[in-house]
Amino acid sequence: MASQVKRSVIIGDVRPRTPTGYPAKAVAGRRLRISADIFKDGHDLLAARAGLRPVGSKKWVTAPMTLLENDRWVAGLDATEVGQHEFVVEAWTDVVGTWRHDTELKAAAGVDIALELEEGALLVEARLRKVHRVDRDLLRAAINTMRDPSLSQPERLAAALAPEVVGALAEIIEGDVTKSSVYRVWVDRERALAGAWYELFPRSYGGLKGATERLDAVAEMGYDVVYLPPIHPVGVSHRKGRNNTLDPGPDDPGSPWAIGSADGGHTAIEPSLGTYEDFDAFVARARALHMEVALDYALQCSPDHPWVIEHPEWFHQRPDGTIKYAENPPKKYQDIYPINFWPENDADRDALWSACRDVMEFWIGRGVRIFRVDNPHTKPVPFWAWLLPSIQAEHPDVLFLSEAFTRPKMMAKLAEVGFSQSYTYFTWRTTKQELTEYADEVAYGPTADYMRPNFWPTTPDILSGPLRNGTPGVFKQRLLLAATLSPSYGVYGGYELCENEPFSEANEEFLHSEKYEIKQRDFTSPTSIAPFMTCINDIRRRHPALLELDNITFHDTANDQLMAYSKTTADGSDTVLVVVNLDPVATQEATLGLNLAALGVDTERQFEAHDELTGATYMWLGANPYVRLTPEDPAHVLHIREVS
Amino acid sequence: MASQVKRSVIIGDVRPRTPTGYPAKAVAGRRLRISADIFKDGHDLLAARAGLRPVGSKKWVTAPMTLLENDRWVAGLDATEVGQHEFVVEAWTDVVGTWRHDTELKAAAGVDIALELEEGALLVEARLRKVHRVDRDLLRAAINTMRDPSLSQPERLAAALAPEVVGALAEIIEGDVTKSSVYRVWVDRERALAGAWYELFPRSYGGLKGATERLDAVAEMGYDVVYLPPIHPVGVSHRKGRNNTLDPGPDDPGSPWAIGSADGGHTAIEPSLGTYEDFDAFVARARALHMEVALDYALQCSPDHPWVIEHPEWFHQRPDGTIKYAENPPKKYQDIYPINFWPENDADRDALWSACRDVMEFWIGRGVRIFRVDNPHTKPVPFWAWLLPSIQAEHPDVLFLSEAFTRPKMMAKLAEVGFSQSYTYFTWRTTKQELTEYADEVAYGPTADYMRPNFWPTTPDILSGPLRNGTPGVFKQRLLLAATLSPSYGVYGGYELCENEPFSEANEEFLHSEKYEIKQRDFTSPTSIAPFMTCINDIRRRHPALLELDNITFHDTANDQLMAYSKTTADGSDTVLVVVNLDPVATQEATLGLNLAALGVDTERQFEAHDELTGATYMWLGANPYVRLTPEDPAHVLHIREVS
Repeated sequence: MASQVKRSVIIGDVRPRTPTGYPAKAVAGRRLRISADIFKDGHDLLAARAGLRPVGSKKWVTAPMTLLENDRWVAGLDATEVGQHEFVVEAWTDVVGTWRHDTELKAAAGVDIALELEEGALLVEARLRKVHRVDRDLLRAAINTMRDPSLSQPERLAAALAPEVVGALAEIIEGDVTKSSVYRVWVDRERALAGAWYELFPRSYGGLKGATERLDAVAEMGYDVVYLPPIHPVGVSHRKGRNNTLDPGPDDPGSPWAIGSADGGHTAIEPSLGTYEDFDAFVARARALHMEVALDYALQCSPDHPWVIEHPEWFHQRPDGTIKYAENPPKKYQDIYPINFWPENDADRDALWSACRDVMEFWIGRGVRIFRVDNPHTKPVPFWAWLLPSIQAEHPDVLFLSEAFTRPKMMAKLAEVGFSQSYTYFTWRTTKQELTEYADEVAYGPTADYMRPNFWPTTPDILSGPLRNGTPGVFKQRLLLAATLSPSYGVYGGYELCENEPFSEANEEFLHSEKYEIKQRDFTSPTSIAPFMTCINDIRRRHPALLELDNITFHDTANDQLMAYSKTTADGSDTVLVVVNLDPVATQEATLGLNLAALGVDTERQFEAHDELTGATYMWLGANPYVRLTPEDPAHVLHIREVS
Repeated sequence: MASQVKRSVIIGDVRPRTPTGYPAKAVAGRRLRISADIFKDGHDLLAARAGLRPVGSKKWVTAPMTLLENDRWVAGLDATEVGQHEFVVEAWTDVVGTWRHDTELKAAAGVDIALELEEGALLVEARLRKVHRVDRDLLRAAINTMRDPSLSQPERLAAALAPEVVGALAEIIEGDVTKSSVYRVWVDRERALAGAWYELFPRSYGGLKGATERLDAVAEMGYDVVYLPPIHPVGVSHRKGRNNTLDPGPDDPGSPWAIGSADGGHTAIEPSLGTYEDFDAFVARARALHMEVALDYALQCSPDHPWVIEHPEWFHQRPDGTIKYAENPPKKYQDIYPINFWPENDADRDALWSACRDVMEFWIGRGVRIFRVDNPHTKPVPFWAWLLPSIQAEHPDVLFLSEAFTRPKMMAKLAEVGFSQSYTYFTWRTTKQELTEYADEVAYGPTADYMRPNFWPTTPDILSGPLRNGTPGVFKQRLLLAATLSPSYGVYGGYELCENEPFSEANEEFLHSEKYEIKQRDFTSPTSIAPFMTCINDIRRRHPALLELDNITFHDTANDQLMAYSKTTADGSDTVLVVVNLDPVATQEATLGLNLAALGVDTERQFEAHDELTGATYMWLGANPYVRLTPEDPAHVLHIREVS
């Protein structure tokens, strides 16, 4: 029956959202932008609002939506607390507004509006009981004026157009109100989106105590998160030697990712690194320095892991009774047993998954609030979709960084099911076009509602592109790109010293990789770029524009080796323009083609470009300043300000 | 509980689909391409299949899916009948295939595979009861060979790799099978996607009888559909005169869209046009000429329409008791009363919507199977979402063309809720870049799964761009673009004669518009481009590649005035390359940059480019032939063939 069809406005493409109903992501204290396509038949004006609330709360906090263009509407709402939230979009016909708009046009054209005035009076009358009691007298007076034959039509219309009358009627939701589905959004703390990470292997600093001593320097450089590769007992069976060889020497420490020995498994600490007390002291010292500790969460076992003996059913067993080691045929990784997340028996699966969860809970109990998850794409997505929300339900401040250097759709899926951040392909994006497309994609692409990037120039596994045998200038360039293209970025300790020796032409790893040996480093080296890193982190802390993701604009440079982009806070109070020389060997120059509107400056007036790296201040006028950058000092980081 | 989590493969972004669950669209007798993202953790091989069936049928017709790239899988299935269908995607781990792949790699690397052979034998054994009875002996023999210690490992492995063994195991769906949601797809007959339309006003041919006489010529030109603007009684009140004036002369016929008079409403025929018998004869003659008739469906009334007297509650009533006429403030359209689709009373709404449905049913009863719906965007989307499927449930062969020259999101929404085709923005896309982007968007953009374009160079309302005061060459150019960029296109009768006089500089309509007066035309004029139109329609009928939408490739021309694109059938049996000179006044030439792979020809061998317009045949070699086109004969339509 036609009468069962609901009168409605069309609401479509509501964002933020994920492809399959998992919560999108937001940050507490940052404005959440809610948008939707809203339209209906004909020419009536529409009105809309968005509502947000923590799940469990009865009260929506609402904000009116405004029309951008092409039927796209937007509202900004603030999520104030961490945890699961939900939001909704409502839209309806703005009946009084439409009347007002049409009648003004007719009046302006000199058309008789006697009938329109009566229609307007009836409209307002019908809405009297929907407004605040205090506004009713005001509206009754307006109605009387609209109907007063002693006044001119323009005078009568003016009564309906008075701002207080418009205001009193503005909040009314009309009868054809349409509600969107309710969408969930997970609100994280700030660090989920923005932070500077520093990775260090405690064993190269003499263990946890030595690493604790290193923390002051790391904090001084301006890092927010110290990430530790696995600190658990390292297996002995099939232990790898230096440079990933199969015949370790007696002093070779083995890979920290070969987890588990007679000394314990994922909840134990490798004895040569120290004790729980040492770990607690490390966490406490980091906290005192306003940093926090991220721990590696690598679900795999060495053959010596207690789980292998206690729970062979948690692994893949072969017909001869042995346990299947990791392979990438024909390559063998006999020092690693992958876990079988789907044991045949349900009770075994419950026990295994609970044990995995207990590992995380154990370290949460020791003060860890960030986990860097190793190779999540080799474990089942349904496992993560189960584990991560179950942890966050108890500990909503816990964050997860996905080390999913894998295919793009899996990377996105892991973000969708709950990872707070993800490593990215930044490491392999080196040309201007690649960097521009990729930064644009992570900021505005289809995954931007739920996948947050963390850009790393190198990791213990990856020394790629121009950093291979790269100069200190290139190390500066790649760090600067990571730190200014993405609100979260990280470095692997040793980056200060521009460690640049590749394993081989064909192999992307480091020679003398710290994964297989203890490294001695002289951080007092005069060629260290630590001062540059300190400067960059300081700039990031003073410029909130750099700590946002979806606020980047790219500018023309007419030179493929010079890249220029800016970031601006939503309120326009902070604008930073970055110009980078991507050429590792030559000085490059160009006349820029700036998008002045994106920089918030006037085309006709001088503006100030203050280089936060050098302290120099340039007075620029117009869109085409000239820049010149050497490979040694490959960037300007310019604070843009109008001259007062 | 972890044990309640389902083991699964990830299936995402299944297509075709619409944004909110309405059926996507397909065509009977054409291959339906079903695709999805399919992946899971780790490196196991996956297998997948797609299933399709008419709604109501129990039996799925299935086809295996194959991996394209980036985790995208695809299958082709044929919908054989018109009507509602549903499809599903299923994916699972190819356990045996993974074993086979890994074991082959190990064997090739010379690794001992004794254990692998036993694992393989166990895998096959476990699947014995899942295969056809006839295959079991075959598999048992293979198992025995795999376990035979008297044979070499390569010999034992060969038994597992034998094609008949692989084939017997190929169809097995494993235990972790994941089923996508079930998606609906509406299957239309061919004409929903492809056809050449011809619009004519019967009154300019002396009414329906005279229009019937015109049909032979229309059929001879190669048109498939004859579309008639409203043929109903034209209102008298506030009738419009020639050139949309407010003071009609006594002989002025008024706008056919001012529907309804004392002679009847939407189910009546304007007496000056003829009788029902004349209409039936028109439909019959069209059918005899292998054409069909499309009727206008314009839900609005003149003040003289019977509904206005009988059902004032179906219109918007004003405080003084009058009925609200159409307006675009401050403009007034007093000859038109819009319908109020939401009368306050439910029974009134039922009666109104049923009456609208009855109008369509009435003309369906007189042999009409296509409706060209006037301004659907000024009527509620929920009305169309109710009406169109309810018509097609009874008459699945009925098609609806949406005249939604409106904002893009409304245009797409109308397509989504059930319109078979839509007018488009083609009329306003004239530069090479505009045409390329737009043709790409309709073929491959986000609406391609459910919105089918119909390209019209002009309509009675629109004479735009280079056609205003345009030369016959430009009329040829725009027709050719419409007819080869889109499988459906249409012309408004008179196009043959290159009617090109605009109403005014600022007004997009025709001077002496046929909407307000009877036109006399001399179709025997020696400057008629009817022979060109005939030739184009003939080419379309002989080249199935031109009757598809998502098969277009654009080629470089290094000249902004020369556009080149090709279309190829899925099986590669038909390829047409179109080169168009967009310059209305000058000859243009260029060396093309052809994508030879898209043309299906060898880079090293000569191929034939036969111009279907001129009959000339060019022998080309390589990607860079030279072309030169005048404004008078602005195109090559080249049938591309390898030389045998």
